[in-house]
Amino acid sequence: MTLLADLLSSLFDRRYGTFLPGGSDNRTMEELTAALLGAAGEVSGSTIACSILDKYEKANEDEKRAFFQHLAEDMAVSSETLRAALETYEQGQTKSSYEALVNAAEPKRQELIRRLNQVPDATRSLVAMRADLLRFSKDDDALQALNVDFRHLFASWFNRGFLVLRPINWENPANILEKIIAYEAVHAIDSWDDLRRRLQPVDRRCFAFFHPTMPDEPLIFVEVALTKGVPSSIQDLLSEDRAPIAAEDANTAVFYSISNCQKGLAGISFGNSLIKQVAADLSLELPGLKTFVTLSPIPRFRNWIESKDLGPTPEDPKHLKALAAHYLIAAKRKNGMPLDPVARFHFGNGAEVHQIHSDADLSAKGQQQSAGVMVNYLYNLAKVSQNHERFATSHDIAASSDIKSLSAAAEKLLNRSPNDG
Amino acid sequence: MTLLADLLSSLFDRRYGTFLPGGSDNRTMEELTAALLGAAGEVSGSTIACSILDKYEKANEDEKRAFFQHLAEDMAVSSETLRAALETYEQGQTKSSYEALVNAAEPKRQELIRRLNQVPDATRSLVAMRADLLRFSKDDDALQALNVDFRHLFASWFNRGFLVLRPINWENPANILEKIIAYEAVHAIDSWDDLRRRLQPVDRRCFAFFHPTMPDEPLIFVEVALTKGVPSSIQDLLSEDRAPIAAEDANTAVFYSISNCQKGLAGISFGNSLIKQVAADLSLELPGLKTFVTLSPIPRFRNWIESKDLGPTPEDPKHLKALAAHYLIAAKRKNGMPLDPVARFHFGNGAEVHQIHSDADLSAKGQQQSAGVMVNYLYNLAKVSQNHERFATSHDIAASSDIKSLSAAAEKLLNRSPNDG
Amino acid sequence: MTLLADLLSSLFDRRYGTFLPGGSDNRTMEELTAALLGAAGEVSGSTIACSILDKYEKANEDEKRAFFQHLAEDMAVSSETLRAALETYEQGQTKSSYEALVNAAEPKRQELIRRLNQVPDATRSLVAMRADLLRFSKDDDALQALNVDFRHLFASWFNRGFLVLRPINWENPANILEKIIAYEAVHAIDSWDDLRRRLQPVDRRCFAFFHPTMPDEPLIFVEVALTKGVPSSIQDLLSEDRAPIAAEDANTAVFYSISNCQKGLAGISFGNSLIKQVAADLSLELPGLKTFVTLSPIPRFRNWIESKDLGPTPEDPKHLKALAAHYLIAAKRKNGMPLDPVARFHFGNGAEVHQIHSDADLSAKGQQQSAGVMVNYLYNLAKVSQNHERFATSHDIAASSDIKSLSAAAEKLLNRSPNDG
Amino acid sequence: MTLLADLLSSLFDRRYGTFLPGGSDNRTMEELTAALLGAAGEVSGSTIACSILDKYEKANEDEKRAFFQHLAEDMAVSSETLRAALETYEQGQTKSSYEALVNAAEPKRQELIRRLNQVPDATRSLVAMRADLLRFSKDDDALQALNVDFRHLFASWFNRGFLVLRPINWENPANILEKIIAYEAVHAIDSWDDLRRRLQPVDRRCFAFFHPTMPDEPLIFVEVALTKGVPSSIQDLLSEDRAPIAAEDANTAVFYSISNCQKGLAGISFGNSLIKQVAADLSLELPGLKTFVTLSPIPRFRNWIESKDLGPTPEDPKHLKALAAHYLIAAKRKNGMPLDPVARFHFGNGAEVHQIHSDADLSAKGQQQSAGVMVNYLYNLAKVSQNHERFATSHDIAASSDIKSLSAAAEKLLNRSPNDG
Repeated sequence: MTLLADLLSSLFDRRYGTFLPGGSDNRTMEELTAALLGAAGEVSGSTIACSILDKYEKANEDEKRAFFQHLAEDMAVSSETLRAALETYEQGQTKSSYEALVNAAEPKRQELIRRLNQVPDATRSLVAMRADLLRFSKDDDALQALNVDFRHLFASWFNRGFLVLRPINWENPANILEKIIAYEAVHAIDSWDDLRRRLQPVDRRCFAFFHPTMPDEPLIFVEVALTKGVPSSIQDLLSEDRAPIAAEDANTAVFYSISNCQKGLAGISFGNSLIKQVAADLSLELPGLKTFVTLSPIPRFRNWIESKDLGPTPEDPKHLKALAAHYLIAAKRKNGMPLDPVARFHFGNGAEVHQIHSDADLSAKGQQQSAGVMVNYLYNLAKVSQNHERFATSHDIAASSDIKSLSAAAEKLLNRSPNDG
Repeated sequence: MTLLADLLSSLFDRRYGTFLPGGSDNRTMEELTAALLGAAGEVSGSTIACSILDKYEKANEDEKRAFFQHLAEDMAVSSETLRAALETYEQGQTKSSYEALVNAAEPKRQELIRRLNQVPDATRSLVAMRADLLRFSKDDDALQALNVDFRHLFASWFNRGFLVLRPINWENPANILEKIIAYEAVHAIDSWDDLRRRLQPVDRRCFAFFHPTMPDEPLIFVEVALTKGVPSSIQDLLSEDRAPIAAEDANTAVFYSISNCQKGLAGISFGNSLIKQVAADLSLELPGLKTFVTLSPIPRFRNWIESKDLGPTPEDPKHLKALAAHYLIAAKRKNGMPLDPVARFHFGNGAEVHQIHSDADLSAKGQQQSAGVMVNYLYNLAKVSQNHERFATSHDIAASSDIKSLSAAAEKLLNRSPNDG
Repeated sequence: MTLLADLLSSLFDRRYGTFLPGGSDNRTMEELTAALLGAAGEVSGSTIACSILDKYEKANEDEKRAFFQHLAEDMAVSSETLRAALETYEQGQTKSSYEALVNAAEPKRQELIRRLNQVPDATRSLVAMRADLLRFSKDDDALQALNVDFRHLFASWFNRGFLVLRPINWENPANILEKIIAYEAVHAIDSWDDLRRRLQPVDRRCFAFFHPTMPDEPLIFVEVALTKGVPSSIQDLLSEDRAPIAAEDANTAVFYSISNCQKGLAGISFGNSLIKQVAADLSLELPGLKTFVTLSPIPRFRNWIESKDLGPTPEDPKHLKALAAHYLIAAKRKNGMPLDPVARFHFGNGAEVHQIHSDADLSAKGQQQSAGVMVNYLYNLAKVSQNHERFATSHDIAASSDIKSLSAAAEKLLNRSPNDG
Repeated sequence: MTLLADLLSSLFDRRYGTFLPGGSDNRTMEELTAALLGAAGEVSGSTIACSILDKYEKANEDEKRAFFQHLAEDMAVSSETLRAALETYEQGQTKSSYEALVNAAEPKRQELIRRLNQVPDATRSLVAMRADLLRFSKDDDALQALNVDFRHLFASWFNRGFLVLRPINWENPANILEKIIAYEAVHAIDSWDDLRRRLQPVDRRCFAFFHPTMPDEPLIFVEVALTKGVPSSIQDLLSEDRAPIAAEDANTAVFYSISNCQKGLAGISFGNSLIKQVAADLSLELPGLKTFVTLSPIPRFRNWIESKDLGPTPEDPKHLKALAAHYLIAAKRKNGMPLDPVARFHFGNGAEVHQIHSDADLSAKGQQQSAGVMVNYLYNLAKVSQNHERFATSHDIAASSDIKSLSAAAEKLLNRSPNDG
């Protein structure tokens, strides 16, 4: 009971202000980071950590960049030390030579970040800090190396075992729901009424991963529609005046929107686990569900068509679908990976291309990016593992025979074009 | 609300059995670990992780040791790879050379452990696994190196920022309270009635750290008595027929027992944070509290006396107290650290020796280990940081002037002895 | 912990459908009510109660009225039985003669309603049922008598001791918050953004009473602004671009809106308790709060002015305020009670008229009902009990001396009018 | 979420003392009750209620009795007023004449009790108050009438719709579990280990009803064993070294102990609802359960045998079982109800006598009361309603044909005896 009370009361603390001293530590950031890593850090660490996080939050862009540069340059791995440790280790692999090696290989800034993470809500601040870092590090090798360390720590902290899957529904707190509205990245939620239509009907579900230290911050969420049959139009799926069906009558679960929420967690992948966990949980709750598909955009499809010099984008649905099939399964980057980012994600999860629909997204964004075409990726739980393995090892893409035929048909259209992707 | 529901329902799952397939994967441990680290591990990881943890739980001692040896020997850092990565890095510090370096410096087994930690309750299993490892690794360099990696990961996972401080009281679940009984390491709790006497009176408190993934497993706990004045006898403090005082009337908080609970978390230090957090929280709740002390055993005191060839242990309380003062502040190991393990812990936290009492612990254990003597370490919040720093840098020990006089008095007694500790 | 789980899971049941048989009981309502009151009712009561509530929910207006008439006419107190019981009781006051009297004095329909209340969510249905009854009973003595029984039972069930005071804030579930929007009866909340402005700033509070069986249905709520000084304009108070103050800096708590939520609980008074409880809780949390006032409309003020034949409503603020003061403290119904319903409520709680402000509510509704005038009723906790008693016994109204002067000034204006209220 | 927080914080309040003034109201109980019922009671009611409950709690036996007598004598129904109201009502049944009648028929003490119930934890105090009253009222008509009013109010407050069914398990708070130990009335729980054996194994369950205002006070609880087949010995069922079976393998749920917890709720019946609700919930969770039986003592069996002048109690199991069958289905009180109180309870719920076992309870209590014999009452959900009805209307008892044969066999034995029960 008291764990719950603690969680509740920490939420409460956040609302009504915090007991933290904060206050007026006049030391510079460099002095503070040195203190936190030094002897005092072991005893008064939380006060110092507070001061650093506080100062960082109030810092301007230049000060933030300077802070990162301090970490990146003054707290990097020392190759001399590492070389020496490696030599000792090679001469005799003992506990102490290994410990020395491990210590030499880990830059001090990792310990710094761990020590920062000892005050309430620090994890949230550190995630925000990395979001800043990602902006600054674009063309800066040292900052990119620093980012490698952040990512390494976050991968450990946000390990699947620590995430909690929670249903998002109309009984959720408003301060969480407003984040769902804000973070929805695929099909914008334009009002609280729109949100309610996605959460409240008995044939709709939404799930998010949370981390225990950030209980009101979804990390990633997926919106699900329970349907009879595989849907072919997002506007139909989200129509205001559709009649809900009983959940027990559905045979298909449609993952129609997946959104990452935290810029500071870029590169820490949750989507694969989320889809599989949700599929497993829904199967258990609703044994009538037999098919798990997405209804996904093809965001770079129009770009690709235009790059093909085919003249104006074809309007014939057949042509469009054929081209889309070809784009999804045959258009590749130099490294052999699919051109389309959404496709890469689902193939990487072991999904296969199931059906393609024209006039499936009539929104401005859907027309502009995907030429109105959408695709169902199928999660066949009996095959995802094998599909994934073939994709991971040889970039093989799984697709239904219909899709393969469509793609073959597209070749004729494209023969006119010299630069097949 | 749903976070709570999730926590509750995961507790529920644990009680009524789990949905996990487990089942009968016939592969060997080596095949399974390879699979978990390979491509399939990214997609079917949770099934494989389950199988490994399941097999491990059922393994006998030889099989467990073999599993550890596989991790220790086949998944170690490759010094060739690391050397190569280091050379590339020295030639140019880019994101990719740094990433390669980091990857080369981290043994694969760390990733293995992270991937094991993706199924419900895996953290608990991994902590238990390390408790086994510690038994096996006593004289084995490779296993000790493996242990370094476990400790490194656990230090990250059990970072202070992820721990939750919870009051332990008579309203707590019985399955948690029985662990308090089991884990109490200083003054044994001999029945549920004894437990109730330590939790229910209004002048008693108990607090523990928990980790969100192990909500019914205390990591460390401290028992506190609220008193008027500094106590000088543990039997008085725990007497069955004492009359409780109103918490508001107390001026002193006495930390009379601190116990670590998880063998598998050895070397991950929580005690310092726990005492400080509890002291801070109690100050806030009860502004009348002015003094924070322990009432601690001196577990190696009698051993040390006997090593001094003083003849039979002195019975004169004055002599005993003088010797104890001397033992605590002057008896050192070769590395300059205090001989007494409890003293090392409190000095390391910045505490000082405040008072010494003879006939303070009349139990068999107290007589046998501490010759009946106990000590109050004082946590003076204004001084702990400075005390700690002086102790950490030059092994300086803080003590009241009384204690220093006592210790000086002991010198005479000890002059008779040639081998002053 | 399991109480919480139960509450959570009953919420869950409500969302995902219910386990209740419902089904197709073909008996008539009269047969079902007879069965529920008969022997079978003691054993299979919940099934029968379900059927009745189910049938009622699906009934049309005529069927509902017929159901009420059945209760009103066929399950009334029998005056013969009561007379006989009374005579026996007068002859000898024993346990059994008293029991017989009590039974005779209580109509069977009360037991019927209690037996209906044994299935999940029945309380909510019965409250809705009474809301219907109130519509039907306007001119019907028998239905009004039935209503007396409903009110009697509800007064017992919704006894203050069973109500739970909960803060309403932006962390509340959306399904509760949408009810706050819907039920706000004084200053309409026109969007979720408007709602957030009333809940989220640190100088705003909202509290509601709930009943444990209807955890997502507020019974009554009050909105509070924390201010420096007593406010004189509702538009200023609710302004979109005002700057919040720190709660600790406030010296005044303003109850600016109180709304009853459940038509079916008409006549069960919660407002008095709510204001006092909230005032007590806020005092405890924020010792800086010295003044507890309302900022209230005067909803029948313009009506009253017009009834006075004063010509067009005066525009001079002085005149308006004088008239309002006079209206509040001197305009009475025949029974000696104040004409204004809001005034009656606050005087009945022991409040006094503190200040009157013109141009205080510029909304259409404020102009139309209150001629833009608003009033602060003061809750002086040291005086409410005495104020209440004088009001209850002799209709004496407490008012500041300013208000009394204003009222006196109004007499001149009104002398022109023959029909002083 | 805040409902949970409120519940938690009210638990907290109870632990750490309460904010209530209490204090030193010097008025007498009579003055205080008058004040609570008077005008002041509407505004300052909670302070007065607190004072009364406080004074009551500290009162000695004479003062308590005087308090009850005040309620019983000075706040009774006035037969003159009631007669007058009845006459008016007979002359014209209007809302106001009915309201007057209802008011006249309800003694003021009922309103007093309702007004007492407005402070935190008052319900608990009032339940304790009635437990006192029951002691005092044995031979006192006026106090028995007062008790009628208490029971009437409690029947309304503890209406089935307000009760919450909670599983009692080893994860429950110790302060609740210790009450289970204390309240177990059938087969004493002699230690926390014994308690754990009844709660923790996967083939054991326990459930209790709670009221929201007394979340740590069970009202009634039932202990259940999940078994293969119908058990014939309580010692086997509770054996320390039995091996639990998987819950899914059980075909029978055995209600082997039902205990009421609150003396102050005597006469408010929960047992029937509890058994049915638990049976329904278990059916849902474990579809393999086909049989719901008790394993019950026959507490007045030996008494009855001895009253029959049969000589020493027979030792032949056949004879004992035959006599027990006869006792259960044929031994009646003058009013036609079964002699045995446990039998009355289960027949009243619609259960039937299923099997009888000798040497089924070897405990001292079992030998002394039941001559070691126990009985399974069967809850056949398809028949309970009809069984109940026949029992309620004509005292017909349902029994298996085996039992009827046994009973017939007993007649021979009893022919020797002149006073067949």
